[in-house]
Amino acid sequence: MGIRVGSRTVRFDTPANIIAFTSVAGKDEKNGPYGNCFDITFEDGLWGEKTYELAERKMQLTSAETAIEKAGLKPDDIDFLFGGDLLNQIISSGFVARQLGIPFVGLYGACSTMSETMLIGSMTLDGGFAKHVVCATSSHFATAERQFRSPLELGTPKTPTSQNTATAAGTVVLSVQRGQYPSVTYATPGRVVDMGINDVNNMGAAMAPAAAETIICHLEDTGKRPEDFDAIITGDLGTFGSELLVKYAAEAGWDLSGVHKDCGAMLYEGNDLMHCGASGCGCSASMLCGFFLPELIKGNLKRILFVATGALHSPTSALQGETIPSIAHAVAIETGCSI
Amino acid sequence: MGIRVGSRTVRFDTPANIIAFTSVAGKDEKNGPYGNCFDITFEDGLWGEKTYELAERKMQLTSAETAIEKAGLKPDDIDFLFGGDLLNQIISSGFVARQLGIPFVGLYGACSTMSETMLIGSMTLDGGFAKHVVCATSSHFATAERQFRSPLELGTPKTPTSQNTATAAGTVVLSVQRGQYPSVTYATPGRVVDMGINDVNNMGAAMAPAAAETIICHLEDTGKRPEDFDAIITGDLGTFGSELLVKYAAEAGWDLSGVHKDCGAMLYEGNDLMHCGASGCGCSASMLCGFFLPELIKGNLKRILFVATGALHSPTSALQGETIPSIAHAVAIETGCSI
Repeated sequence: MGIRVGSRTVRFDTPANIIAFTSVAGKDEKNGPYGNCFDITFEDGLWGEKTYELAERKMQLTSAETAIEKAGLKPDDIDFLFGGDLLNQIISSGFVARQLGIPFVGLYGACSTMSETMLIGSMTLDGGFAKHVVCATSSHFATAERQFRSPLELGTPKTPTSQNTATAAGTVVLSVQRGQYPSVTYATPGRVVDMGINDVNNMGAAMAPAAAETIICHLEDTGKRPEDFDAIITGDLGTFGSELLVKYAAEAGWDLSGVHKDCGAMLYEGNDLMHCGASGCGCSASMLCGFFLPELIKGNLKRILFVATGALHSPTSALQGETIPSIAHAVAIETGCSI
Repeated sequence: MGIRVGSRTVRFDTPANIIAFTSVAGKDEKNGPYGNCFDITFEDGLWGEKTYELAERKMQLTSAETAIEKAGLKPDDIDFLFGGDLLNQIISSGFVARQLGIPFVGLYGACSTMSETMLIGSMTLDGGFAKHVVCATSSHFATAERQFRSPLELGTPKTPTSQNTATAAGTVVLSVQRGQYPSVTYATPGRVVDMGINDVNNMGAAMAPAAAETIICHLEDTGKRPEDFDAIITGDLGTFGSELLVKYAAEAGWDLSGVHKDCGAMLYEGNDLMHCGASGCGCSASMLCGFFLPELIKGNLKRILFVATGALHSPTSALQGETIPSIAHAVAIETGCSI
């Protein structure tokens, strides 16, 4: 049974154990500073498929199938698949669900989808509705770029605040199974925050206030300080958005500067062609599954706050003059709670 | 705490009470045989807004605000907003969440979204994570038609198996508050079923097998017979899809003919211009909130199975030659369980 803490955080009476996880990444991600962390990588955008959409589907499917296998389970053992992605009608996830045959709940939180699925997955387990659930997401540069921005053939130059959609996927298997696992102990669902940003090439600025709002809410609700975490990890604010987050938090009296990490700023670190860094559902999912969860298992980290961040606009809403509503969902992941 | 029943159904230890609900509908829906059932109706597609997308947002927002008010609550009292719609990036729901400020979990189940939100909402309440949640969805003929099919200006003729996206919205407030309310007692999440239909103008045929699979699973899991329900209500199979559902169920040994109703077949009944009937998230949401829940409260119905049905394709996947994966989520709603 869950316990509500503070204004909107939930604490899990039985923390959801992360019994397996898998990351999949493309070439640019493999060539970045965390390239060696990913379980499965591939060299070209199509990965042997006919379309980029089929390649993205294969990425998410491969990450899910591999994670389920690592958990020593079969798809039939999984009670719920919580999945989502950036494509219209979340087709990557829908087709993965068709393939796996697991009862499917589709979610859309844009690039916040990974922590959104883990919030719902952890509640489902702690509520007694499932023994094992799978949380999966993906993104692909080529499918997102042509859907959200410009035809790939145009080769449109990027603005300095732009980010590059990561070609990456990640899956975690959450379970009531006991053992020495990292586990989800708290979750804070996001509220939509919109500070009036309407530049679709500046997602970091749009999402930073939502990240700040959720992180501060989590800290206030749980009575924790930033230094109680080994890392507070946002999804894809990028370098500029990360600066803004630290600034907004400081203005509210919270110093995140020593503890904040951003998956989008990390994924292509040092590659100036990527401007402000990476974005996409797969960015935070692959960094969680490729880098942060292994660090928790190695004991290099003990408690993290994972805060995937999403911009909830569409090309239609942007063309109709709307600003960019954003959201961030937080899940606290700890070791040593799960036996 | 939930209890798993059979292969994938969940039973709620504390059923989620439906303490308030509101339906909103457009002109064609108002002129149909259930036109007098809807709480709020309007006469033209724009409802005083500049775009159809803004009109759809206003519909969902109005249904949510009105339902919250009917419940005697304020948005601040609501712990979670579970919402989704058909538009790319579920923008109607995202902007409604921005307006209401309620912690927001976006869902995408195409036209199955209403029962998908109620499945997650009921689990969230029974798991102890919330006191009150809102489940909201909407659809609009003009926004869906131009996104999924053809520019409105073309006036494209419809095929005989086609359906008309309903201009409608519906919201329910689920709560742990006790009283004489209809309540959600069981839920069966859907699996993706795809029988190879690739005609995007024949959604009923694509979705009927998914509806049959979920309904039969629910009956088998709970040990109930179709006649234990006063109505087994699908979302938007339309007249042709409804025939197929009854046929598929009969082939599997279940006679649904006396008890099956379809919101899509009902909404425009008698209007031949609508071909096979209505579709869209708002179709089942408005019929649930406008007709079926009031019938439960009046005592004319005692136990229903509400099975919203969704087709998980996108225009891109259809153009790339994919078939139409479909899903149906079932929630059992009963009176007399909730005190």
